[in-house]
Amino acid sequence: MALIVQKYGGTSVANPERIRNVARRVARYKAMGHQVVVVVSAMSGETNRLIGLAKEIMPDPDPRELDVMVSTGEQVTIGMTALALMELGIKAKSYTGTQVKILTDNAFNKARILNIDEHNLKSDLADGYVCVVAGFQGVDANGNITTLGRGGSDTTGVALAAALGADECQIYTDVDGVYTTDPRLVPEARRLDKITFEEMLELASQGSKVLQIRSVEFAGKYKVKLRVLSSFDEDGDGTLITFEEDSKDDSMEEPIISGIAFNRDEAKITILGVPDKPGIAYQILGPVADANIDVDMIIQNVGADGTTDFTFTVHKNEMNKALSLLRDKVQGHIQAREINGDDKIAKVSVVGVGMRSHVGIASQMFRTLAEEGINIQMISTSEIKIAVVIDEKYMELAVRVLHKAFELEAK
Amino acid sequence: MALIVQKYGGTSVANPERIRNVARRVARYKAMGHQVVVVVSAMSGETNRLIGLAKEIMPDPDPRELDVMVSTGEQVTIGMTALALMELGIKAKSYTGTQVKILTDNAFNKARILNIDEHNLKSDLADGYVCVVAGFQGVDANGNITTLGRGGSDTTGVALAAALGADECQIYTDVDGVYTTDPRLVPEARRLDKITFEEMLELASQGSKVLQIRSVEFAGKYKVKLRVLSSFDEDGDGTLITFEEDSKDDSMEEPIISGIAFNRDEAKITILGVPDKPGIAYQILGPVADANIDVDMIIQNVGADGTTDFTFTVHKNEMNKALSLLRDKVQGHIQAREINGDDKIAKVSVVGVGMRSHVGIASQMFRTLAEEGINIQMISTSEIKIAVVIDEKYMELAVRVLHKAFELEAK
Repeated sequence: MALIVQKYGGTSVANPERIRNVARRVARYKAMGHQVVVVVSAMSGETNRLIGLAKEIMPDPDPRELDVMVSTGEQVTIGMTALALMELGIKAKSYTGTQVKILTDNAFNKARILNIDEHNLKSDLADGYVCVVAGFQGVDANGNITTLGRGGSDTTGVALAAALGADECQIYTDVDGVYTTDPRLVPEARRLDKITFEEMLELASQGSKVLQIRSVEFAGKYKVKLRVLSSFDEDGDGTLITFEEDSKDDSMEEPIISGIAFNRDEAKITILGVPDKPGIAYQILGPVADANIDVDMIIQNVGADGTTDFTFTVHKNEMNKALSLLRDKVQGHIQAREINGDDKIAKVSVVGVGMRSHVGIASQMFRTLAEEGINIQMISTSEIKIAVVIDEKYMELAVRVLHKAFELEAK
Repeated sequence: MALIVQKYGGTSVANPERIRNVARRVARYKAMGHQVVVVVSAMSGETNRLIGLAKEIMPDPDPRELDVMVSTGEQVTIGMTALALMELGIKAKSYTGTQVKILTDNAFNKARILNIDEHNLKSDLADGYVCVVAGFQGVDANGNITTLGRGGSDTTGVALAAALGADECQIYTDVDGVYTTDPRLVPEARRLDKITFEEMLELASQGSKVLQIRSVEFAGKYKVKLRVLSSFDEDGDGTLITFEEDSKDDSMEEPIISGIAFNRDEAKITILGVPDKPGIAYQILGPVADANIDVDMIIQNVGADGTTDFTFTVHKNEMNKALSLLRDKVQGHIQAREINGDDKIAKVSVVGVGMRSHVGIASQMFRTLAEEGINIQMISTSEIKIAVVIDEKYMELAVRVLHKAFELEAK
């Protein structure tokens, strides 16, 4: 007998028929003798409907009240899922974030989980209940309803698995696992039986949007065994996400590269002719950070004439905000010659735990792109990733040739 | 400066535009220097949509899970109403039943309020907030979400007014007050400036469905000043519901009769030839009560031949259930000759605090009906009411002629 947390996303609970499917799957796990905690998202479309209602009243809705409204999406699903289980003769009980209680900080719309009270869930599980918990939501110390931000149901699943000491946390989505790259782009993409947390982090943050990054961090931190599966596929084993230590045993067989990630949501901002002196990076990025604009890649080259060029990427939607901020408040101050923005870029990354001991990966990546005539605008590397920024129009081509060059095709 | 509780029903918050209207009205009260607590229902249609979703999964939904789902209707409205107030520059904060906390028993779908914690509301009111509270819902001692049953938002409003010691509880609906009878039936019906609680109880329970009965009982018990107003009419003062003591001062001017109520939802069950001996009433009504069938009027006449006839009324929907119950389990046992049901009846009542000292009311009522050739099948009286059961097809006629006979027309 194992304790399993199963998380189902919005498409898996999109309507009563799909909710009945979820209940049947849970029933099979119960029949095998397992204890099951189910975490559900709002029915797909519901969160957007609720946000739309809020914006009809207030274009930029108050965050606390938005959470009050948006959290009802999952509350409806937990009721429906519990009813569907009862229809199959299974004892079931729903829990809101407040009822569990999933204690968070008070950062409405993007709260972080501080603690989970596992007492009631454990007691109900011991009594034979399936516990159906609302994903994506919690409660702060003052009883205010909070949400974890879009996609936060994954984090709820992992956090519950950690708090309950579950044997496995299963994330059901509309894909049947993690692939070497997006199969819609590269039909030869291969499903990975397993992948390390670190690789998963890189792949998730770079655009393979299978799991929320924060949930993967959480799983790594609390050593939760995480598996990605398809809710529309009865048989697949999905992709198991492992700790690196676990997978070292068979490192002989490990591929050097796990996958190719890509992302066309970023824009590049370049500041030319910046005096090359201490404190410049802070003077540029400080105001950007103060305006709550997230920055991804940052590159600064040493210049020859006492000036340097400084480049960083932000989300496309925030490029204009960042540009006017820099031109109004920073350019004169730091005496930069010119500030340019470019939102016609894409980032392509090669990811793999194995690459840290293989110096040849970078050169193979650059050669492959050069052979196709693709110019590299920026390069950034980490222990397990090499990312390049290229012209957006070459993105698909770059992903395909790299996928082939690193022999990631289905065998 | 007064503390006012305002309750808005589903039609008053049916869409964003109407919610903005509610906010504007609240803003006017704030501008007058009052403290305001707003209680809102779900947007009209939303509760039925949620019940429909539940029934798609389980035709007879588990009551606990149904409450989890249905309570989201009001939760969305409190968020929207708080946002609409903020858009007008007014400090506002929403509260679910759990957040207040409105403690109820655990009778899901029809819970009763046990206690209201007024601490947080009072503190926020003192800080200048308008508190927007979800009607119709509460929380039991174990943290389960409960609902008070359909229409229970009125009760929430009155209970909050009692707990907070509010100066007035205003119930906004789609009518602009309590009328001498239904204006759709009698165009000459007149709006009452005030009415006593007792009269209101009789009028509400007899079919003038302006307020939930339970909320009126509650208001009477806790001496809450209750006013019914239209949310679509800026100027009206509505109908004030008073304690009888208050209105005695000007009893000289008080009309004897306040209004005519009617109800065509009941059916009559007659048991003929019952042995006239002690315990018979209990032997008949005990099983009916055990089956949770509500009984309204009960009449038993003394018979001549050692037997008697026993008649009572139930809701039309429950007549067949009551009939088969009586025929299967009671008829043989009590040796009754015959059991008949009739669902083609209507009840018409004349209501007024003044009638207790005016013996002529009953005779005037009976003469008026006789002049129209309307046969009276049953009669039941209370201190402030005379109710008769007649053939359903004469109901409208009876209401009109009684309204005229007691001079209730608009002057």
